[in-house]
Amino acid sequence: MGQKFVELLANHPWFEVEALAASDRSVGKSYIETTGSKASTLPESLQKLTVVEAKPGAIDDPDIVFSALPTEVAGPIEEDFAKSGLPVFSNASSHRMDQHVPLLNPEVNAEHVALVEEQKKRTRLDGFIVANPNCTTAILTLSLKPLYDAFGLETVVVSSMQAISGAGYPGVASLDILENVIPFIRSEEEKVERETNKILGSISQPAGVTVSASCNRVPTINGHIEAVFAKTKSRATPEDVVKAMSGFVSVPQKLKLPTAPAHPIVVRKEEDRPQTRLDVDEGHGMTVSVGRVRKDAGLGGVKYIVLGHNLVRGGAGCSILNAELMLAQKYIQ
Amino acid sequence: MGQKFVELLANHPWFEVEALAASDRSVGKSYIETTGSKASTLPESLQKLTVVEAKPGAIDDPDIVFSALPTEVAGPIEEDFAKSGLPVFSNASSHRMDQHVPLLNPEVNAEHVALVEEQKKRTRLDGFIVANPNCTTAILTLSLKPLYDAFGLETVVVSSMQAISGAGYPGVASLDILENVIPFIRSEEEKVERETNKILGSISQPAGVTVSASCNRVPTINGHIEAVFAKTKSRATPEDVVKAMSGFVSVPQKLKLPTAPAHPIVVRKEEDRPQTRLDVDEGHGMTVSVGRVRKDAGLGGVKYIVLGHNLVRGGAGCSILNAELMLAQKYIQ
Amino acid sequence: MGQKFVELLANHPWFEVEALAASDRSVGKSYIETTGSKASTLPESLQKLTVVEAKPGAIDDPDIVFSALPTEVAGPIEEDFAKSGLPVFSNASSHRMDQHVPLLNPEVNAEHVALVEEQKKRTRLDGFIVANPNCTTAILTLSLKPLYDAFGLETVVVSSMQAISGAGYPGVASLDILENVIPFIRSEEEKVERETNKILGSISQPAGVTVSASCNRVPTINGHIEAVFAKTKSRATPEDVVKAMSGFVSVPQKLKLPTAPAHPIVVRKEEDRPQTRLDVDEGHGMTVSVGRVRKDAGLGGVKYIVLGHNLVRGGAGCSILNAELMLAQKYIQ
Amino acid sequence: MGQKFVELLANHPWFEVEALAASDRSVGKSYIETTGSKASTLPESLQKLTVVEAKPGAIDDPDIVFSALPTEVAGPIEEDFAKSGLPVFSNASSHRMDQHVPLLNPEVNAEHVALVEEQKKRTRLDGFIVANPNCTTAILTLSLKPLYDAFGLETVVVSSMQAISGAGYPGVASLDILENVIPFIRSEEEKVERETNKILGSISQPAGVTVSASCNRVPTINGHIEAVFAKTKSRATPEDVVKAMSGFVSVPQKLKLPTAPAHPIVVRKEEDRPQTRLDVDEGHGMTVSVGRVRKDAGLGGVKYIVLGHNLVRGGAGCSILNAELMLAQKYIQ
Repeated sequence: MGQKFVELLANHPWFEVEALAASDRSVGKSYIETTGSKASTLPESLQKLTVVEAKPGAIDDPDIVFSALPTEVAGPIEEDFAKSGLPVFSNASSHRMDQHVPLLNPEVNAEHVALVEEQKKRTRLDGFIVANPNCTTAILTLSLKPLYDAFGLETVVVSSMQAISGAGYPGVASLDILENVIPFIRSEEEKVERETNKILGSISQPAGVTVSASCNRVPTINGHIEAVFAKTKSRATPEDVVKAMSGFVSVPQKLKLPTAPAHPIVVRKEEDRPQTRLDVDEGHGMTVSVGRVRKDAGLGGVKYIVLGHNLVRGGAGCSILNAELMLAQKYIQ
Repeated sequence: MGQKFVELLANHPWFEVEALAASDRSVGKSYIETTGSKASTLPESLQKLTVVEAKPGAIDDPDIVFSALPTEVAGPIEEDFAKSGLPVFSNASSHRMDQHVPLLNPEVNAEHVALVEEQKKRTRLDGFIVANPNCTTAILTLSLKPLYDAFGLETVVVSSMQAISGAGYPGVASLDILENVIPFIRSEEEKVERETNKILGSISQPAGVTVSASCNRVPTINGHIEAVFAKTKSRATPEDVVKAMSGFVSVPQKLKLPTAPAHPIVVRKEEDRPQTRLDVDEGHGMTVSVGRVRKDAGLGGVKYIVLGHNLVRGGAGCSILNAELMLAQKYIQ
Repeated sequence: MGQKFVELLANHPWFEVEALAASDRSVGKSYIETTGSKASTLPESLQKLTVVEAKPGAIDDPDIVFSALPTEVAGPIEEDFAKSGLPVFSNASSHRMDQHVPLLNPEVNAEHVALVEEQKKRTRLDGFIVANPNCTTAILTLSLKPLYDAFGLETVVVSSMQAISGAGYPGVASLDILENVIPFIRSEEEKVERETNKILGSISQPAGVTVSASCNRVPTINGHIEAVFAKTKSRATPEDVVKAMSGFVSVPQKLKLPTAPAHPIVVRKEEDRPQTRLDVDEGHGMTVSVGRVRKDAGLGGVKYIVLGHNLVRGGAGCSILNAELMLAQKYIQ
Repeated sequence: MGQKFVELLANHPWFEVEALAASDRSVGKSYIETTGSKASTLPESLQKLTVVEAKPGAIDDPDIVFSALPTEVAGPIEEDFAKSGLPVFSNASSHRMDQHVPLLNPEVNAEHVALVEEQKKRTRLDGFIVANPNCTTAILTLSLKPLYDAFGLETVVVSSMQAISGAGYPGVASLDILENVIPFIRSEEEKVERETNKILGSISQPAGVTVSASCNRVPTINGHIEAVFAKTKSRATPEDVVKAMSGFVSVPQKLKLPTAPAHPIVVRKEEDRPQTRLDVDEGHGMTVSVGRVRKDAGLGGVKYIVLGHNLVRGGAGCSILNAELMLAQKYIQ
């Protein structure tokens, strides 16, 4: 995920990578040394950047911190940066459920940015933390948002088929996943169930949607694809759902944020799409692709397929969009 | 599937392969010619068997017909064989939903064999057709049976991750499935929803369970793995479900049929099992492996994972077990 | 391969797709119908183009014909188009070894274009056929060219690991290649051995290099990677070879042809590169990536790895570069 | 590899697993805890065996030591066990090239066992170390042996396509190998070149064969497949080679050792075999499968494909066969 942040920021119109920081033995090495040959398509200046220790003093006057730190260490380090007065945009799960930390998927809950006021009051500091959702949740909630707004949501059942890049590097051993399905990803189902409610909810209370997830790892590289069964509060036919999703645009599109896709949701008409490999890069990875919207007898609502790029919409791209949103709305100077 | 039938019958204690028949350009060739080098581990006598045309007169006095014909042609050919007085055990979907054709998954609905009496009356012939279920359905219904018996079943939501061998040969093009998920398998969801009710139902009426499926193709070779969400009629905790499944045995076990696995359902205790590649051959492919039995908030019941071998329990193995059952019960002389 | 032609031509600065033709049941359908959803990122005008029959009269006044016809039918159809006065750029193997047909890999043997004069004399017509090499050969010969020029070549031994897209669509069945290596590709080794000599040779005689190939199919999507062992005529150290390859540019670069990559050969310094998935798109698929150049005790020369995109450098891209070359050199008006 | 040793020894007719030892944090855990659910098909007594530290005193009176220790630590630990009087059969590369350590592939160089006499003299102890070859080398040398004996060998060029299990667990990250080829395996080529000469050589000097290898990792699970180009000293046609290989048997077959396959080499007649997934388990993994024997213009000899199971013939199976050989020949009491 750290590599995806660097890749997306390398040519960003608003942000410039000034420093790379880590919490582990990468410190002191050049970025290219830590990634092996994988970063060799980046600008040379980035390749040669020396990785510093991830603590406030180590970086010379940064403006924004993006964090792809491992969850085990992210919590206190991110707090330190926030305490030092910096806005921290984090992909770690450590602070996602903190009451005053926005869990932000900008097309879904842009209004949650206001939580940082409360957060700053509490900490009496200028800095703050904003989290982006778990990858599976970011993709799911974006597809659910138009339904939630138009029809209300009672229950969501979701079974995911998640790519290996979701587990980081080295992550999943090839012996574990080649020609295999692993029907278990630690803590993932709990995250989907919990975070979906915070994101779809208002600034003051969760959405009250019953969510049940079954999360599976499959041998694909990028792209989480999810079979969704959803019961809305008011009746919605598949046609209603397609209509609500197809026209959907939100705050990032209206603000023309650089990372915002023109269409956050694309609804495919083909009977066999979206497919992971074919559609994962839709909207440069920021669009989720929906397909096969049809009646669901199980919950008495609709069922559909949604696919998104787990490292972009489900991670670094979402976090960068969060920063763009807060910059556009003057939360950051 | 035809190859799996031959492989399983090659060393069967009760049955002997006398003839191989086909409906296509294989006719007239030796079996090894039609399969390429894949059949080269079979006894040489089988490899050299000349494929004849699939019609009653072409085979010299057979006792039983196993059919793995493609659905497009299976229907009338199987009827012809039945009319000629033969018991036909079919893997094709053509006759599965016929009122008087048993759709037989022997551990689940052995009592449905009685339907052939009605079928024979209707046709005034000695022959009959018995179908085995769709692969995904065979695996699913075996796992559901102990729940249906102990607690009753209201609703089942299932999302499958199915292996490529389920599509036959050449079947799925490698360009379509390598590093990909295809969230669509033609007619599969309808089959699962329809057949589950016939199988779990009584001889005279369907079970009345609401079933909703979302079927996906993933890059695995053998083994369909399914994320199941089930609402029982009377309350059942995960522990209740594990208990009901673990001890489950049925008619084939009691009759000690040669193809019946000692344990039709194995419940795994590890948090990350069953896995397709590791567990697909459990019970020589006749056992389904269940894992991750846990509470489901979505339907208000339980959710679990079930895995089975789509060509064995979900196909040829099930059909052979059907024949064994009917032979043991004197429906065949 | 046909799809790759359309994709590369869709935004070409010099060429415009006026018509699509086929020899099979695609005729009469719109392009999008024949490809399924795979062509859906193309301009809509292309998607809707009706496929016509592949014969001269069926297309309204074309200027150039690109042929990705299957080898079984390509021969006579391509001749018909040439006879009708058109330049035909063919990816089929039918005419590759014809004496007066240039087998053109533009950075390697641009001077072979002169063969069309002879070809036209023979046929007394304005049209002509130009072939691009077999995919494995196009990649191999581009990497060999600087060695051939600088040191001469005696012997080349090559073992390839080829992607599934090389076999077209549906091509390789997933059951045949998932988690497998198939050490056989029909006629491939003969093509590599034969075509390499025609391409590296002069306009009047083959190069006289002894070539021996062992061709293997592996489970990758795009990109043929080859282990090459080469004995040069005059002594060349690995350093000499790296130097000769690194600076290599040729006619297409000098003419600044639109499809010509800035660097036809990139030599990687990392010990574990090139890798198929990471490097296949180098130079938009027109560059071959070389790595691991080292001494070879076997033939007494050097050994190295070369990777190229089989559908671009090894197919459609090469053919389009051929047309650009001949247009720039006024062989086409 | 450790797991494969345990699996193969679990039902061995001569040997019984008394203790499992490790050099890392597995010490003190039960075997099943260290392997996760993967060992769950083993006898329960083995699953529950507590892993002890790998040092002589920690195991109660063993008779034989099998070592699958990582190379980094294997050297001194194996020496300690040998010093304590025990025969050590090692899969590590640490001692393979030691002058008095037999590098034993029993069908190829059974006579090398005599080296242990010299080894014992030198160490003045009853214990000794016997190494099995590198996986790729074990497979290669078994296929070369009949050629070496019948025609002599001058040069061997080999390009391997090796399975992920060769790198141990967790070994190759899935992000590195899914849909990819990595044309580099550290130290592998040197091992193949060096060990082949020791194995084919006499007890007192290496074979003097020029060997050049190019080693590649491909996305398969088990089975190394190799494209071999070989120049024999006296002329040998493909037919000669097939004949020499087909009838080949050696000391382990004559002694009827339990792990010896009936046919150490199987020559396939099909044009597209052997294939990794289809043929890897030939002879329970102890047989190598050869195919596509044909003339090679490159070296002026023959070329062929050979496949073997890297963990069985290329590892644990070979080591166990070594122990069987030495027990049968009374080197072990």
